[in-house]
Amino acid sequence: MASSSSNSPCAACKSLRRKCQPECVFAPYFPPDQPQKFANVHKVFGASNVTKLLKELQPHQREDAVNSLAYEAEMRLRDPVYGCVGVISVLQHQLRQLQTDLRYAKSELSKYKNLGHDGLIEASTHHHHHPRST
Amino acid sequence: MASSSSNSPCAACKSLRRKCQPECVFAPYFPPDQPQKFANVHKVFGASNVTKLLKELQPHQREDAVNSLAYEAEMRLRDPVYGCVGVISVLQHQLRQLQTDLRYAKSELSKYKNLGHDGLIEASTHHHHHPRST
Repeated sequence: MASSSSNSPCAACKSLRRKCQPECVFAPYFPPDQPQKFANVHKVFGASNVTKLLKELQPHQREDAVNSLAYEAEMRLRDPVYGCVGVISVLQHQLRQLQTDLRYAKSELSKYKNLGHDGLIEASTHHHHHPRST
Repeated sequence: MASSSSNSPCAACKSLRRKCQPECVFAPYFPPDQPQKFANVHKVFGASNVTKLLKELQPHQREDAVNSLAYEAEMRLRDPVYGCVGVISVLQHQLRQLQTDLRYAKSELSKYKNLGHDGLIEASTHHHHHPRST
């Protein structure tokens, strides 16, 4: 967890042009050297919504919350139409593709495995005969 | 695309207690019968941020944008710490698991496929002999 230096205000207070108090709710998560992180969150959610949200959480949950908000905000600025819901769509598409591939691989595998060793020889001989008898 | 009825204000204007003008940017996406959709988006992003975002988009992109914002907002209210970034984490975990399963199935499959038919008989015979010769 980053903490603001005693001299410089945190990135949030600097952006909002206000004094960074020792109890500032933003300071631990928006260090002065990461101004973009606050700018993104502020632009997408608004500082007052983020303040409200953080105050409703336990202190130990706040860092994860800020980081997930920062990720969502960055994705929304990169893709104003879909934001991180676009990421979810891509992942769901990949999941469905992998599930199809896995189902296919497993059905292929079961053809071999169900045969067993003797079955394999028989099936193998069988395959050799049939196409040639036509 | 839903449009507001001519009588009742859209869910956004009703919530914000203002007159719903014919050119209302919210009306097509926040019909009066879906008050929760606007309430969620307003609570998480704020009406003015959403207005700004919609005005920066082409009209044909706005419905998708509103629906992705509504989804993000709903996820953030259900899970205030991770929001829809939690969904992304779950999907990424499932993807990695499926990739591992698929890699394993493919390596199993390649053992059979690389053998070919004659190889299968040979390998199969081989397997029958070796354990019994020890």
